[in-house]
Amino acid sequence: MLRIGLLTSGGDCQALNATMRAIVKTVYNNTKEDVEVYGFKDGYQGLIYGRYRKMDWGDFSGILTMGGTILGTSRTPFKRIDTPEADGVEKVPAMRKNYKALKLDCLFVLGGNGSTKTANRLREEGLNVICLPKTIDNDTFGTDITFGFTSAIDVATRCIDDIHTTASSHGRVFVIEIMGHKVGWIPLYAGVAGGADVILIPEIPYKMDNVVKAIERREKNGGRFSIIVCAEGAISQEEAAMRKKDYKAKIAQRVKPSVAYDIAEEVAGRTGKEVRVAVPGHTQRGGQPDAQDRIFATQCGVEAARGFLEGKFGYMIAKVGGKMCRVPLEDIAGKLKYVDPKSDLVREARMLGISFGDE
Amino acid sequence: MLRIGLLTSGGDCQALNATMRAIVKTVYNNTKEDVEVYGFKDGYQGLIYGRYRKMDWGDFSGILTMGGTILGTSRTPFKRIDTPEADGVEKVPAMRKNYKALKLDCLFVLGGNGSTKTANRLREEGLNVICLPKTIDNDTFGTDITFGFTSAIDVATRCIDDIHTTASSHGRVFVIEIMGHKVGWIPLYAGVAGGADVILIPEIPYKMDNVVKAIERREKNGGRFSIIVCAEGAISQEEAAMRKKDYKAKIAQRVKPSVAYDIAEEVAGRTGKEVRVAVPGHTQRGGQPDAQDRIFATQCGVEAARGFLEGKFGYMIAKVGGKMCRVPLEDIAGKLKYVDPKSDLVREARMLGISFGDE
Amino acid sequence: MLRIGLLTSGGDCQALNATMRAIVKTVYNNTKEDVEVYGFKDGYQGLIYGRYRKMDWGDFSGILTMGGTILGTSRTPFKRIDTPEADGVEKVPAMRKNYKALKLDCLFVLGGNGSTKTANRLREEGLNVICLPKTIDNDTFGTDITFGFTSAIDVATRCIDDIHTTASSHGRVFVIEIMGHKVGWIPLYAGVAGGADVILIPEIPYKMDNVVKAIERREKNGGRFSIIVCAEGAISQEEAAMRKKDYKAKIAQRVKPSVAYDIAEEVAGRTGKEVRVAVPGHTQRGGQPDAQDRIFATQCGVEAARGFLEGKFGYMIAKVGGKMCRVPLEDIAGKLKYVDPKSDLVREARMLGISFGDE
Amino acid sequence: MLRIGLLTSGGDCQALNATMRAIVKTVYNNTKEDVEVYGFKDGYQGLIYGRYRKMDWGDFSGILTMGGTILGTSRTPFKRIDTPEADGVEKVPAMRKNYKALKLDCLFVLGGNGSTKTANRLREEGLNVICLPKTIDNDTFGTDITFGFTSAIDVATRCIDDIHTTASSHGRVFVIEIMGHKVGWIPLYAGVAGGADVILIPEIPYKMDNVVKAIERREKNGGRFSIIVCAEGAISQEEAAMRKKDYKAKIAQRVKPSVAYDIAEEVAGRTGKEVRVAVPGHTQRGGQPDAQDRIFATQCGVEAARGFLEGKFGYMIAKVGGKMCRVPLEDIAGKLKYVDPKSDLVREARMLGISFGDE
Repeated sequence: MLRIGLLTSGGDCQALNATMRAIVKTVYNNTKEDVEVYGFKDGYQGLIYGRYRKMDWGDFSGILTMGGTILGTSRTPFKRIDTPEADGVEKVPAMRKNYKALKLDCLFVLGGNGSTKTANRLREEGLNVICLPKTIDNDTFGTDITFGFTSAIDVATRCIDDIHTTASSHGRVFVIEIMGHKVGWIPLYAGVAGGADVILIPEIPYKMDNVVKAIERREKNGGRFSIIVCAEGAISQEEAAMRKKDYKAKIAQRVKPSVAYDIAEEVAGRTGKEVRVAVPGHTQRGGQPDAQDRIFATQCGVEAARGFLEGKFGYMIAKVGGKMCRVPLEDIAGKLKYVDPKSDLVREARMLGISFGDE
Repeated sequence: MLRIGLLTSGGDCQALNATMRAIVKTVYNNTKEDVEVYGFKDGYQGLIYGRYRKMDWGDFSGILTMGGTILGTSRTPFKRIDTPEADGVEKVPAMRKNYKALKLDCLFVLGGNGSTKTANRLREEGLNVICLPKTIDNDTFGTDITFGFTSAIDVATRCIDDIHTTASSHGRVFVIEIMGHKVGWIPLYAGVAGGADVILIPEIPYKMDNVVKAIERREKNGGRFSIIVCAEGAISQEEAAMRKKDYKAKIAQRVKPSVAYDIAEEVAGRTGKEVRVAVPGHTQRGGQPDAQDRIFATQCGVEAARGFLEGKFGYMIAKVGGKMCRVPLEDIAGKLKYVDPKSDLVREARMLGISFGDE
Repeated sequence: MLRIGLLTSGGDCQALNATMRAIVKTVYNNTKEDVEVYGFKDGYQGLIYGRYRKMDWGDFSGILTMGGTILGTSRTPFKRIDTPEADGVEKVPAMRKNYKALKLDCLFVLGGNGSTKTANRLREEGLNVICLPKTIDNDTFGTDITFGFTSAIDVATRCIDDIHTTASSHGRVFVIEIMGHKVGWIPLYAGVAGGADVILIPEIPYKMDNVVKAIERREKNGGRFSIIVCAEGAISQEEAAMRKKDYKAKIAQRVKPSVAYDIAEEVAGRTGKEVRVAVPGHTQRGGQPDAQDRIFATQCGVEAARGFLEGKFGYMIAKVGGKMCRVPLEDIAGKLKYVDPKSDLVREARMLGISFGDE
Repeated sequence: MLRIGLLTSGGDCQALNATMRAIVKTVYNNTKEDVEVYGFKDGYQGLIYGRYRKMDWGDFSGILTMGGTILGTSRTPFKRIDTPEADGVEKVPAMRKNYKALKLDCLFVLGGNGSTKTANRLREEGLNVICLPKTIDNDTFGTDITFGFTSAIDVATRCIDDIHTTASSHGRVFVIEIMGHKVGWIPLYAGVAGGADVILIPEIPYKMDNVVKAIERREKNGGRFSIIVCAEGAISQEEAAMRKKDYKAKIAQRVKPSVAYDIAEEVAGRTGKEVRVAVPGHTQRGGQPDAQDRIFATQCGVEAARGFLEGKFGYMIAKVGGKMCRVPLEDIAGKLKYVDPKSDLVREARMLGISFGDE
């Protein structure tokens, strides 16, 4: 008898169901033992409070193309997993207890950075854990890509495409805010795919002077409209300098109102042009997964199941240099993968004439 | 020799190019005379200031699926067309002069309500004008539908679909703001298509009590998330009562910040649930036209050209009760088509369990 | 206690689940009585052989956007419903018996022409039946539109769009076969939406001479490619003349191989141009319903439920002249709705320069 | 003064225009010299017969999202480039002459395997050539991916998705023919993305016994439908054995009728199930490029322009192990990249339960 647990943790994304389908189908197809599957509800909360349902093969049929997660998810406060919450439950011991009570052979965790950190803590407790790199943000350390990323790029790019026709008709400047609080992967990729004129990401703080110059240069060359793609966490050089002293406070203040409105207002004031804002928001993590995400999610799920069947635990499935591999949890837990300002794509975007606002 | 002028006026939408293609192809195909086509730039501004380009058959080839407008558009302040602006140009005489200078046989105006009003004024001046019902908002008086409407519904519905999976995964309430300042056509149709739980439109002022009750009722029935679709111009009963005294001022104040954020804040405060906002904004008027819009736009364009070739002027092409027809400009100029709160679709949506917040 | 039965019959289409959701939600929301729902499997077969499952509210949640039918469907041979099959079961009595055994108050039939005929036969037996106009083909008599139609147009149009870019790049002629054995609704609408140069439908038999002439005319005007959209049941004038004598035999022969290949071969032979074929086939009845179909399907479902709750039976829900209504089954059973060659859209398409191959 | 030539050769694909836009924009943006751009019509034909147009910056604006190629393309018979055709023109000398007449500094060739071979021949003649890896088929040797590939996967996957709902509703077996005469990249990737049950590709000859067994196994496990994805060049083990003796003849015979119909017929005969066929055909190389293709195409274009500006020639731009690079034309000309039956994805697909018909 094999007993496995599944949970999806953190912000949801598009190919979570595809991944779980691959895990479960692969386990069933490649063992002669009976298999019991336990799906924990709403991420680690389900493991902490013992909320789960017993599932079977059929529950994972027909979900390949379905967005969201059939298990539910939540953002449990990972930072304090070793201290009791207001409810008096000590989380790590509670998770350990529920894992043991169900006699699990393995817990599959579909999650991003925060989730990996908690998974690593469970590994230290002696639990068998395998992580799978979920996030639209592509900021999971240890893997070149994550599932959810290409679907989010698709949604963001479609948004830029749609804005293009109306921006062009009216001769307006548009500021489109794309997801990415700490990292700029989606804005960078979608910005290139959508033909943005300016891309502002957290990793490359901007100067408004340079943004305005880019718009004016474009106008001088005959362009009657401009598209500025900014990450949720786009930051000016002035702010970046300040944040070094007082980082946490600033992040908190930026969540709302949207940074795009501030940028729009400043651009409008300085160029005298009509400026409009679009904030596709959570649509970027919703809807059906695209083909690329389904393929990668399936690969991750199969490889995780294979690892489990080989009796190997304590790592995250990853893709590095085009090859599927396993990276130890202790090497990656709590680390973020940023856009490298010197990377190929940034350099290529600059040569193409895209401004990052830093020069 | 036949000489025709074309202009696209007001907010852009998805099938403007498809419509112009149909006009021009039909005129060329159904006359033995030579044809000259003048495209005015940026709506009535082009006619006022004599900015146009001479175009031919080839300019309208391959644009059937293209969003936006190859002529550009603008929102010229229609209310004061009979008075000179700061630039000293008297608009109606200027338009009349440019029309005459080019010896036009007809001016085709692709526009919504404001544009129709100006077109009617030109008709009174003795110009030959034919209007075509453009707008995503579907609020053009005298026709059951307008081109742009179904494409905007598509974009809005896709947005609601995308939000559905993430709302469901996290058990959240979402407020999605859909275009419609004065009318609720797109929110109503997209809300039904997307499976919204609450739809708030200008024509049916809401009470927050009822919105909260609808969410709680849904939760009691096992729904772990709720989708509220609100029009840009959604209005509470309290505000509606106030506006009767001071309408103009209130409208102005609502443009920014978005009404969705206010509603979200109130719902969060009163239900204690996590609430998020999505504002797809101008994406709703961008991108490629859908099949239905292309068909109707093509029908409008052909019928307008047919009317021109018959020597009939002074009307808008319309669809009423499923039939293409011509409605006199003087009957429709300056009138708006509102959602009837007693219409089939509203009644059906209520029976289905959708709340409009009014009861 | 209210007891209702549901079945989906004939070729499937995109908004079947959306329709059933609307029926069931509306019944539950608008009665204080308990409700029992019986879903018959695979169309009338389920009713004949007593294969059904008892369903509840939850089974119809989240299926608004889902293509296909959660009940399954089949094409039972309707012509012989009054005679026993090889299995010895007399169908009408069997259906009557199962209806009575479950003490149904009403049977909702989602089906096209054949299904309506059978439904009418059941009505004659004294059963309470309400039909809902399902079919991608839009050939259901008594209603202006059917659900499934606009989604099928979308898929077909997207196919023509995709072909356009490659046809244009290579300077080829393409023949695209669009669904419609007996009627040409989808090819006509998608052909106009997709910018076809030639549209061949069963209602307007073509002469190959005219098709070739249309391609040559287009080439003379500078077009380096041509798109021919043909219905599955496109027919030459010669064949049409023959069929009048021997209709049945000919239909059978046309099912396979596809008519598009024959037309392509003839066009290639006579024009010397490179000709390619695309047959999107069943993709046209698959995938998610578009927004328009979801709205109309929802309207149909709500109106059917409303009729049931009023105790009115024996009709099909329909939309005529833009209004929802009920048409008696005896007036429509066994009749087909054809494209009228003199209709607005055909006339408009001709003025636009589209050839139907008949002149 | 810099003079560059551009041509697109072979079967078209989705991001050709995006690639050319990137080349031209990058050259203009990164030199102070004047630039002249010559676009050759219809691939190498334009270079052979001196058919080109002088283009500028503006011609490449707004084409990022446009499918097809603004230059046109053709499949010139590459095998005999060194011998005169019926028209008496010796091709290599003609190309050399036209290149020299225009005083080109570089010729950019967007093409696949055949095109690369010819490009290498021109390189041997002393011309400056840079190739860019265009093809939906992903069979270009020397690069991990090609532009066009992910867009083709998208179209193919959407087709499988659409078929899924109708296959499921009717309980049918579907055979979907996906592009790939010699290689199975698209069927493999789209098959995994679309949840196919059987995938048949040229690199893994199948036995019909195994295909039938896979369908029966699935049925035994409760699956009421099956999806078979076959490449255009899918081949049985019997045929593969024969072809070794008589390869050429067999290929020719397979072009038409489609292999999917043969497979469908055999499956229907042996399983007794209803089987249907879908052949999306050239839609797979048409329509707008997806985001991934636009990004990679843009990277290729920028890198090619960068190479040109550095004065480096005689290679193809490629992506290997996630990094952009240059591979010498002589190393890759005339070689094909096949799916490795032992690759990660094939192995993963097998573990998931997908049959390749070989066991």
